[in-house]
Amino acid sequence: MKRIADSTVRRLSIYLRFLEDSVLQGIRTISSEELARRGGTTSAQVRKDLSFFGSFGKRGLGYPVPELTTALRDILGIGREWRIIIIGAGKIGTALAQYGGFRQRGFQVVAVYDSDPQKIGSRWDGHEVRDVVDIDHDIAADRPDIAVLTVPAEEAQAIGERVAAAGLRAILNFAPVQLHLSSDVTVRNVNMAMELEGLSFALTNREKNGND
Amino acid sequence: MKRIADSTVRRLSIYLRFLEDSVLQGIRTISSEELARRGGTTSAQVRKDLSFFGSFGKRGLGYPVPELTTALRDILGIGREWRIIIIGAGKIGTALAQYGGFRQRGFQVVAVYDSDPQKIGSRWDGHEVRDVVDIDHDIAADRPDIAVLTVPAEEAQAIGERVAAAGLRAILNFAPVQLHLSSDVTVRNVNMAMELEGLSFALTNREKNGND
Repeated sequence: MKRIADSTVRRLSIYLRFLEDSVLQGIRTISSEELARRGGTTSAQVRKDLSFFGSFGKRGLGYPVPELTTALRDILGIGREWRIIIIGAGKIGTALAQYGGFRQRGFQVVAVYDSDPQKIGSRWDGHEVRDVVDIDHDIAADRPDIAVLTVPAEEAQAIGERVAAAGLRAILNFAPVQLHLSSDVTVRNVNMAMELEGLSFALTNREKNGND
Repeated sequence: MKRIADSTVRRLSIYLRFLEDSVLQGIRTISSEELARRGGTTSAQVRKDLSFFGSFGKRGLGYPVPELTTALRDILGIGREWRIIIIGAGKIGTALAQYGGFRQRGFQVVAVYDSDPQKIGSRWDGHEVRDVVDIDHDIAADRPDIAVLTVPAEEAQAIGERVAAAGLRAILNFAPVQLHLSSDVTVRNVNMAMELEGLSFALTNREKNGND
């Protein structure tokens, strides 16, 4: 399969949510125009996005909702269980572990790590916080799929290198820093404070420019 | 000021975090190469990013850390108080309100809304949950700066339109749907489950392709 752009994968996730809602409402077929409206794109883009993965639907009849839902879940790897480790037992890590939406979609937290002696060994949302010094050994033994990094910025690169060296191939990075890892490691970044700063930047510059 | 790309603004946020760490460590000057390494970019890009906003530093001497820190904080609108309303008193909303990083950077939650009669009127992290039917009136009266949308996907567009019509110009959208609003409303999207799906997609397709 060709390299698929992140923007395409994001739209597939959006289409899937709309399709799942449609399944619940008993809707049997859906047009590329409807999917496009939901995904903030054009019907041509919808057809192109889906064409990467096979032939869905019939011209003029729209897409069959249950079949396309199943296909997108398979494409996105949903419905399998993905084993997640959280590195950094702080506030964001806690919020993530409590977020029920992950488990619903097959993302299961299997271990939590920290370097703080005060936290190591304590119970944390059903997990005993492990010492991050053991992480290389644990990854080799337990083979988790995804590491969620909620460590301070200055520690993120070193931890990223360690988990990659131990064999982990997917990282969700909450630290406000770009990770430089080998190209076979997929990294997605989430930074809520940075998104808010993007908004405060826009508001500040609007004011400077007299609301233009 | 010209329209600045979101990617530039994100890098400014990353540079700023590195600069703030450097201030704490007593470092007085920093090179564009160091900022580039932190921001996952080139020193030429760093110079270009900063050149939008004025002339910083001297060739061969690097950038003065305290001055550049102050300048970037001003550029990003940090240090002012930004008033935030959270719409949707669910799990993500709760996690956000508990996240201390926002307040540290001047983002203050001033009101929380929901449409669920069971939640309206209840206390929620120091706020009484308000009825979302009052939101237009409240925005006109209280003039918050930013709305955080943590409502279900199918409600997000309608709520986005309402807050925009009431005068709000910045939205942080957690709903898994693209909002279509007038161009004077700035929208940033955060979707953690979607980021995880991007990772499961990458892992699934790596397996299909024999770990290539």
